[in-house]
Amino acid sequence: MPTPPRAAALRLGIAGLGTVGIGVVKIVQRHATLLESRCGRPVEIVAVSARDRTKNRDADLSGYAWEDDPVALARRGDVDVFVELMGGHEGAAKAALEAAIAGGKDVVTANKALLAHHGQALAEAAEAAGRVIRFEAAVAGGIPVIKTLTEGLAGNAMRRVMGVMNGTCNYILTRMDSAGLPYDAVFEEARQLGYLEADPNLDVGGIDAGHKLSLLAAIAFGTRVSFDAVELEGIGRISIDDIRRAGDMGYKIKLLGVAQMTGRGLEQRMTPCLVPADSPLGQLQGGTNMVVLEGDSVGQIVLRGPGAGEGPTASAVMSDVIEIARGCRLPTFGQPAASLADPIPARANSPAPYYLRLELIDKPGALAKVATVLGEAGISISRMRQYGHDDASAPVLIVTHKTTRDAVDHAISCLPATGVVAGEPVAIRIEAV
Amino acid sequence: MPTPPRAAALRLGIAGLGTVGIGVVKIVQRHATLLESRCGRPVEIVAVSARDRTKNRDADLSGYAWEDDPVALARRGDVDVFVELMGGHEGAAKAALEAAIAGGKDVVTANKALLAHHGQALAEAAEAAGRVIRFEAAVAGGIPVIKTLTEGLAGNAMRRVMGVMNGTCNYILTRMDSAGLPYDAVFEEARQLGYLEADPNLDVGGIDAGHKLSLLAAIAFGTRVSFDAVELEGIGRISIDDIRRAGDMGYKIKLLGVAQMTGRGLEQRMTPCLVPADSPLGQLQGGTNMVVLEGDSVGQIVLRGPGAGEGPTASAVMSDVIEIARGCRLPTFGQPAASLADPIPARANSPAPYYLRLELIDKPGALAKVATVLGEAGISISRMRQYGHDDASAPVLIVTHKTTRDAVDHAISCLPATGVVAGEPVAIRIEAV
Repeated sequence: MPTPPRAAALRLGIAGLGTVGIGVVKIVQRHATLLESRCGRPVEIVAVSARDRTKNRDADLSGYAWEDDPVALARRGDVDVFVELMGGHEGAAKAALEAAIAGGKDVVTANKALLAHHGQALAEAAEAAGRVIRFEAAVAGGIPVIKTLTEGLAGNAMRRVMGVMNGTCNYILTRMDSAGLPYDAVFEEARQLGYLEADPNLDVGGIDAGHKLSLLAAIAFGTRVSFDAVELEGIGRISIDDIRRAGDMGYKIKLLGVAQMTGRGLEQRMTPCLVPADSPLGQLQGGTNMVVLEGDSVGQIVLRGPGAGEGPTASAVMSDVIEIARGCRLPTFGQPAASLADPIPARANSPAPYYLRLELIDKPGALAKVATVLGEAGISISRMRQYGHDDASAPVLIVTHKTTRDAVDHAISCLPATGVVAGEPVAIRIEAV
Repeated sequence: MPTPPRAAALRLGIAGLGTVGIGVVKIVQRHATLLESRCGRPVEIVAVSARDRTKNRDADLSGYAWEDDPVALARRGDVDVFVELMGGHEGAAKAALEAAIAGGKDVVTANKALLAHHGQALAEAAEAAGRVIRFEAAVAGGIPVIKTLTEGLAGNAMRRVMGVMNGTCNYILTRMDSAGLPYDAVFEEARQLGYLEADPNLDVGGIDAGHKLSLLAAIAFGTRVSFDAVELEGIGRISIDDIRRAGDMGYKIKLLGVAQMTGRGLEQRMTPCLVPADSPLGQLQGGTNMVVLEGDSVGQIVLRGPGAGEGPTASAVMSDVIEIARGCRLPTFGQPAASLADPIPARANSPAPYYLRLELIDKPGALAKVATVLGEAGISISRMRQYGHDDASAPVLIVTHKTTRDAVDHAISCLPATGVVAGEPVAIRIEAV
């Protein structure tokens, strides 16, 4: 059989040569044959761009044209796909991405912040220009969750999407647990290990994970990305006490993202939650990510894998490149951007059990007073544990039956008046997983 | 903005109206709007086929043409995609699928047996005709593992693919463990619950799961499907004793499929293995499936979800239908069938620790004799446990350091000559997960 003529190569321009960019270069160089057989055509890098040309990098870039300006890279006539790995949700990355779309390029990006803030406008621009934006690497690192949600579960009306999607937070929480160290000490460890973003609040404040959740919610529920509506609470207030006490009651504390469509609108929250210690989420250690996808037909699908790092993130970028090389062209969020609904944001008030920790002052009838306040707020107690104490107050842990955040907030606001509670009570939602 | 003209519907012909077929009908009926927005065009059923037209089914089929003969369905001019949900690897399903391809239809099938036996020929025929065959539902039910492997991880050279992919076997093993019941009793339970195939050996003999493994291996390693080269060992010889003893040593027994490319060739095995009790595979309960995919860049990705049932399997079928509706067209095994290599089958001999259970006859120096035999076979002992006993023999459990199946088989063949071992020793591979 004569060899068929070789199909035209897909030509990449890569903007950003940090860890992920170099990871992509390495895969393209190492797996040229594999990629050609899987794509039906060669995949080539033609040009690259980064801030500092002189920096010593762990890859041979001599075969590629160099552009100091990513916008110039995005406008090159010999680039088919603009691969944006610069980061940042304003400035150069946004300008370059817009230039790429305007210049008729497809785009692959790992930039969750950019899409969380400008995803709707970018998707509309791309679709008007007949171009695609793919962003597998923007959410949960090496886990192909965008593909799973957009394609693998596309026959489902999604019910709920959950995930532990910031490896640094999960590292901090599991390290506090295993080493018995306070938050500040482990935060400092994480900083020294290079696990934290330049602005650590992106990690520990839940912002980075919130960006990711907002992208998943858009695909899952066919709504415009609405990062501003994500309820964000970081892990900075989680004490080693809470981790220990939650453990005593059979739970782990996770920074858990949850998006679900309710009768009141779209709930999106990225907050510390308790999950059963023996559940897949509860068992998740260190920097690993996990996403839980629930659909009306499929039930529950759980995906677990590395959430960051050169190889995993580059693997996700390459999945998008290969999709484009194979001629698969999907709208950014799985349906035309113009058809995405404007979501009604709903406060996270869907019923759940809650974990309460409070310091009870040693007075006769103290526990009865607390129980009365809870009862009057319509909260019933599932399990309660009071610890021995040497001080004037004793820790009390309560796991409630299903109730609402509103009821819990109301009860907590009534506790000071009892005169039997010291300090600030802690209330953490227990998510059914 | 004027409404764009409505794109032409994708027209399905569904052959087989069992649980899965009816599940697909329900999704298409319930989610017409959702499917149209996600596919960019309507998805419609135009005709169906099954053995018994008069059977009472849990769906309204009155709007569809009926064909008694699936081949006639496959040849209909108004069908774009032939959805084969009949099952069986010869006869009607094969004839209908071939007719569909010959007639220029794309094909979606859940038929693992058919593809395990005839995948290469069918893929070649489809590709010669410019048609696609998709089979997400053939492996691991609702888990989108075919898509994850073929697309999501396509930038990786895969290292190993593993999975618990027969829910019935996992149900039997975990039920034996939790209820302390012998194999025969739980097998009978499973039969009464309707969990077993008409020929139960398809399940408990590992054949069904072996079919699935052979399909994953073809995609992962770019090799022709070679089901005949899968080393198959079912769960019929697993005793409640082994489950208990393995538990004592910190392991669970799973019917685990493993495919990996070695220097000697392609290893494919579907055999009982021990896995750490606290690993994701070890914690897998009941009928749930789990697939572990390891690539050179991504590291390890774990997927978990329902392995069977109306909703999950129909969800997988719909994922393929939607892929076709969106115009994504992949070769059956992720690269052109003609380019798939003929794999060199390698006996499963890659090094691993082994679990050995044997009955030691109560004689002075008995344990030393066993240890000598192992030492002479080059096997070193990691952990050993001898149980108290009232009889003339005592159970001894040994966990070895890494060794080969050949060394273990050799040692076992030498044990009778020691005169200190009663009955047949049990040896089970411990898979690193």
